[in-house]
Amino acid sequence: MAGERRGVIPQSEDFSAWYNEIVFRAELVDRGPVRGTMVVRPYGYRIWELLQADIDRRIKETGHVNAYFPLLIPESYLRREAEHVAGFAPELAVVTHAGGRELDEPLVVRPTSETVIGEMMARWIGSHRDLPMLLNQWANVVRWEMRPRMLLRTTEFLWQEGHTAHVDEAGALRETMLALGLYADVAREVAAMPVVEGEKTEGERFPGARQTFTVEAMMRDGRALQSGTSHYLGTNFARAFGIRYTAESGALEYCHTTSWGMSSRMLGGVIMTHGDDRGLVLPPALAPYQVVIVPIGHGDQAAAVQTAAADLTVRLRRAGIRAHLDDRPHVSPGFKFNDWELRGVPIRLELGPRDLADGAALMATRLGACKTAVPLPSAPERLTDELAAFQALLLRRATDFRDSRTRPADTWAEFTDAVRTGWTLAFHCGSPECEDEIKAETAATPRCIPSDGPPEGGRCVRCDGDSAYGRRLIFGRSY
Amino acid sequence: MAGERRGVIPQSEDFSAWYNEIVFRAELVDRGPVRGTMVVRPYGYRIWELLQADIDRRIKETGHVNAYFPLLIPESYLRREAEHVAGFAPELAVVTHAGGRELDEPLVVRPTSETVIGEMMARWIGSHRDLPMLLNQWANVVRWEMRPRMLLRTTEFLWQEGHTAHVDEAGALRETMLALGLYADVAREVAAMPVVEGEKTEGERFPGARQTFTVEAMMRDGRALQSGTSHYLGTNFARAFGIRYTAESGALEYCHTTSWGMSSRMLGGVIMTHGDDRGLVLPPALAPYQVVIVPIGHGDQAAAVQTAAADLTVRLRRAGIRAHLDDRPHVSPGFKFNDWELRGVPIRLELGPRDLADGAALMATRLGACKTAVPLPSAPERLTDELAAFQALLLRRATDFRDSRTRPADTWAEFTDAVRTGWTLAFHCGSPECEDEIKAETAATPRCIPSDGPPEGGRCVRCDGDSAYGRRLIFGRSY
Repeated sequence: MAGERRGVIPQSEDFSAWYNEIVFRAELVDRGPVRGTMVVRPYGYRIWELLQADIDRRIKETGHVNAYFPLLIPESYLRREAEHVAGFAPELAVVTHAGGRELDEPLVVRPTSETVIGEMMARWIGSHRDLPMLLNQWANVVRWEMRPRMLLRTTEFLWQEGHTAHVDEAGALRETMLALGLYADVAREVAAMPVVEGEKTEGERFPGARQTFTVEAMMRDGRALQSGTSHYLGTNFARAFGIRYTAESGALEYCHTTSWGMSSRMLGGVIMTHGDDRGLVLPPALAPYQVVIVPIGHGDQAAAVQTAAADLTVRLRRAGIRAHLDDRPHVSPGFKFNDWELRGVPIRLELGPRDLADGAALMATRLGACKTAVPLPSAPERLTDELAAFQALLLRRATDFRDSRTRPADTWAEFTDAVRTGWTLAFHCGSPECEDEIKAETAATPRCIPSDGPPEGGRCVRCDGDSAYGRRLIFGRSY
Repeated sequence: MAGERRGVIPQSEDFSAWYNEIVFRAELVDRGPVRGTMVVRPYGYRIWELLQADIDRRIKETGHVNAYFPLLIPESYLRREAEHVAGFAPELAVVTHAGGRELDEPLVVRPTSETVIGEMMARWIGSHRDLPMLLNQWANVVRWEMRPRMLLRTTEFLWQEGHTAHVDEAGALRETMLALGLYADVAREVAAMPVVEGEKTEGERFPGARQTFTVEAMMRDGRALQSGTSHYLGTNFARAFGIRYTAESGALEYCHTTSWGMSSRMLGGVIMTHGDDRGLVLPPALAPYQVVIVPIGHGDQAAAVQTAAADLTVRLRRAGIRAHLDDRPHVSPGFKFNDWELRGVPIRLELGPRDLADGAALMATRLGACKTAVPLPSAPERLTDELAAFQALLLRRATDFRDSRTRPADTWAEFTDAVRTGWTLAFHCGSPECEDEIKAETAATPRCIPSDGPPEGGRCVRCDGDSAYGRRLIFGRSY
């Protein structure tokens, strides 16, 4: 039962312990029987469904179609792209036996599907008329994690993976950036996470990609969460799998491909972007219940209050609000308040005999200090506005937080100081060894070369070499 | 490309070859790289999404909530229920290595999730107040099949699996029948498949179930397709996993559990229930495109026709119709007609200069012999009605077909004759050995004890023993 114990470990005391307590007590997830696996419980899964529906709509609106590819992939497929197998080999789960006997060739449980989709694209694409091919898959993937963390890094997770093929680099790059923009929009408009878009440095690229782009979000402990990535794969996978087309000229050409993914890890991002010491704080767009109504009344008055609360619930639902009537008879209103606070419900409405006599309900928002009376007749319109305001407030609050924790650094002292509590904007020489040294000393890595970073020259914050990117990079510790 | 070759192998010549040709040429599926695996291509996946959305809505409306459980299950879990492991052991795919090393305990890729969900229910259920617990999962499952068949039996398939826990047998049985009714409604109302509901005999039960119920559909070759099953599991899994609750009396009791599933196999059912020698025939409720508009016009007239066709498409879409404008410039109208016939689009509208002058489009339904003029102004209303009529026609046609291929049999000669082309209603003694003999000689098995079969006594059609079920069983060959 949620809310059985009062009080949550404060974020400031131990952010990691706070996170673990929240995800379990709010009944978002549970540990699976196998180390590193996760069960997504109904309350957590509903948040995922809402996120999924929104992403799916945007993916379809931009001309992509869903399909489904096999879970089990011949081990040899991964070896066809050298960087790809090097990147994923340590994380693979391998099926060696099936149907009561040992398999001739081991099968890997997909860690991602570039290989098997590449094989099928090669079969399906003949002419330039078949391009672009714009596919998406909703699936589970398995990556054996050494340091599992609920929702952020589990051996299995849920995601969508877009896979597209194009006639040339320009088309594939446009697609790569379209997917990146889609992720930035989802993060901001739905999850209220003010992400920064940018490109990854060479050392942080997807194994097999020519370029990797990312949306990075700042969590309330100042760390970065990579929240979605979009890869331009060049002709690497096209060459490995023979994805070719006949051009109008009659020549046989390799396709340029992309892939891009966003996952259930976003739920972890929502928790760590908005949550506080009382529990979750959910953006209305992702809240299973946007408004919870708690009837309060004893004896003779209970029936009238109950009727009015049920009526209000129906009216809110008709206005498109996900309203929930908490009429559990065996727990107190105080218990319910704490429970829904823990679960991050944006708005709570209390309805007692006195409120009913006044023709109003008492509204408390998840972040507000005081309660406000909401006249019952106009409640649906008022709550619709309040929810929109709450969604906007979360984005603004998170943006302010991120900005307050992001500082430029021109000296190593400024750099080490800044990444202790947040992000820093600094120049870098582009050398992978220099990146490694920074990571070894500070645990900070280049999160991205921000797309909207102004052109600027300077010296590497670590080794004083020439700046390689013509602008500052964002550095920070990450999940 | 679909439609590249004219003509399809006739059903009457080789039903199995017809089926294979249809699923590949209509681009519903493709073979995956590993034997027995399947790729669901965008056109097939869209049908699945439409089916899934309908099932999901019904599941939620009846009070169930979605959740997600791990793909990989400790091998030991399956052994906790003796019948369960005996039933599934031959079909398991086993992960023995992960993260670069051999695992201490092998993990099976879920063939179904009673075990892992049972483990979690045991953790979550404390008191009778937590019951009933009504869960559903959308997932992929893996069962190593010896004789794979696209959509019907593949090593991996997509499904939903409901898992519920109740205080007693009565509650669990009500749930079992609720799920069965839900499946029957989906089959009839959405897939236009006139299924028969009934109980499985002991030999056909789900491994670990006390009772298994099924909805059985007849394909156009007279064979039966088990299209959804619902199981009352008694306290078998509750005892194996310790799913217990504290009753109001304070006593600790075992839960009674159920499970029920419907899968992507339904797509195979749709194909084999409605398809004909020209290709697929899709019920409008599951058709990715319910109406396809083909503009016809040359030279000067092309632009006006194109504009009118685009306008008509928009108007149909506004009326809630999934309309598609086929404006491919490089293929002929004749090619398009064949292509959309093969893909089973319920209604085709042709729009040429003469039609436009008449203010009408020419309508051809997928099963109709002649074309009808549909006035453009009222097209949305008319097409809405036509689609409803087409959906009803498919169900009626399939019902007539099933009834024409179902005969009672009171002698062994009548029995063997009937199951050659369809189903038979016959008495049976209830002995598993007698069932096995019938199967060995005729390939027919008891499909179900029909729920609405009238009480009737008689002698076993095979061994002349006493009838065990108080009514006739349906026998037939199956997929």
